[in-house]
Amino acid sequence: MTDQVRDHGGGLDAAIVKFGGERIGWIDLSTGINPHPYPLGRLAPDVWNALPDKGAGERLLAAARRFWRVPDAADLVAAHGASALIAQIPGLVTAGSAVIPGPTYNEHAAAFTAHGWRVSDQGDAWAQVVVHPNNPDGRLWTPATLPAPSARLTVIDESFCDVAPDRSLIAQAARPGSLVLKSFGKFWGLAGLRLGFAIGDPTLIATLRDRLGPWAVSGPALELGARALGDPGWARSTRIALAEDSARLDAVMRRAGARSLGGTTLFRLYETENALAWQERLARHQIWSRIFPYNPRWLRLGLPHALHWPRLEAALA
Amino acid sequence: MTDQVRDHGGGLDAAIVKFGGERIGWIDLSTGINPHPYPLGRLAPDVWNALPDKGAGERLLAAARRFWRVPDAADLVAAHGASALIAQIPGLVTAGSAVIPGPTYNEHAAAFTAHGWRVSDQGDAWAQVVVHPNNPDGRLWTPATLPAPSARLTVIDESFCDVAPDRSLIAQAARPGSLVLKSFGKFWGLAGLRLGFAIGDPTLIATLRDRLGPWAVSGPALELGARALGDPGWARSTRIALAEDSARLDAVMRRAGARSLGGTTLFRLYETENALAWQERLARHQIWSRIFPYNPRWLRLGLPHALHWPRLEAALA
Repeated sequence: MTDQVRDHGGGLDAAIVKFGGERIGWIDLSTGINPHPYPLGRLAPDVWNALPDKGAGERLLAAARRFWRVPDAADLVAAHGASALIAQIPGLVTAGSAVIPGPTYNEHAAAFTAHGWRVSDQGDAWAQVVVHPNNPDGRLWTPATLPAPSARLTVIDESFCDVAPDRSLIAQAARPGSLVLKSFGKFWGLAGLRLGFAIGDPTLIATLRDRLGPWAVSGPALELGARALGDPGWARSTRIALAEDSARLDAVMRRAGARSLGGTTLFRLYETENALAWQERLARHQIWSRIFPYNPRWLRLGLPHALHWPRLEAALA
Repeated sequence: MTDQVRDHGGGLDAAIVKFGGERIGWIDLSTGINPHPYPLGRLAPDVWNALPDKGAGERLLAAARRFWRVPDAADLVAAHGASALIAQIPGLVTAGSAVIPGPTYNEHAAAFTAHGWRVSDQGDAWAQVVVHPNNPDGRLWTPATLPAPSARLTVIDESFCDVAPDRSLIAQAARPGSLVLKSFGKFWGLAGLRLGFAIGDPTLIATLRDRLGPWAVSGPALELGARALGDPGWARSTRIALAEDSARLDAVMRRAGARSLGGTTLFRLYETENALAWQERLARHQIWSRIFPYNPRWLRLGLPHALHWPRLEAALA
């Protein structure tokens, strides 16, 4: 459950041990989670106490279908986070070769390897996974640039695509062997809630549903997910706010001497002369950032909460 | 996610369509969920907003280890409900023959069948599953009465055992090939929260952990689970209250002409002349109960909330 052997960012616990302070005093910019989440509002006691019923599940899926304009030919299933789906997907079909263009979110390769697949980062293969937009560099894909023309299993991880819905490849969900993943935690800022979706080939979705078991989504997630996905106005104003904040972050970092390499409006990737030195400098101000084992110059930052800009600007002054 | 094709009880949605009324007016006695749940208290915003961190997971597992007196040789993993574990367990070892003494909770047989096992309800086998105490009749098991002496995989589902901790078979969790399941939703009355545990053979637990993926438990479940499992006083007084309420329910039902067949102090099983007629009689008072496709005389009732006794007593008068 907290298997964080793989490099996930996060790791604020360990940073606090090393650099001191109390959790409450730290600003965690090591993830790509919207710091201004969808409001919790009121939750009726039944949401907590009762087994989630069929109606609540149907309301969530109907809202998801509308919000993401899911093609009629595609089915969808909700799970306790996109990571739960990522862990199960490689077991849906017989293992073989998989292509996962990197660098990218490393849980995909880990899950395919755990299920006995041979994973490479280029070339044709039986399965292909793209993260769209890619984490950490923001790379976008199109149907024409997908890496494996012969793939029988195609996974398009759109965990960060809700900031750019016009770029979504959701139409691909109607193709046999295809799955598009959606995450609720990042754009809506409720990562602790655990909610994610797989959308695509009805046969694959049916197997995923079986493997997840009944009641895979909590009562609070069913309720808040349905409310948030039924609120396109919040999504529109949030996209504008995230775009403004990411431009502001780029400006702050440029003044401090880093070069923007892109990303999404939920996280920004910077080139520095020495990412570890930047991470330690920020950590001395109790601001946690993300570095990458495979590139010593890359630093990734999520967006600060409105109240935290002055501390970030002071740390970089 | 809400795959309720199998008979799970619940199904209050459908009852409302058939018998009328609004959800808020119905009393749902079709499950075995404590109607007086562990208090939610306050939840810090981070519980909802942040990715659950390693420390929160460790606190939960440490509290679980103490509360259930987990043997040192056993490992444990938390998941989004016992049902998520039940769906995954048959995939941990090569499929063969499984014995699941029935009648019992039907998700076990469904999951083993879905993973290609041959399931019977008696005889020796490669795998065995017992529900302890059994649902719906309350049957208790001992190491000597387990059905399959040659089983390499033994699952002891203690979802309802927290009302009788002295009967727990948790010591079996230290045996190779064994898993003991615990559920948070029932005894603590927070079924919507989705939290369950597998405790046992470290090799099996490690595979389960991989299949569940990172962050399998929500922030609210990590926090409330750790609090509740660290509160043995609440558990003690709850056991007393549940015993009193189940004795009261037996008395009410005896006066109405039903015979108690046992159960646990979270649900009671009754023999009636015609369970469907009893279910419909209660449903006309907007009280939902559980009947069983395999026995037309069995009626199962959960305990009513303190405020709901008068309506139940009036319906049965």
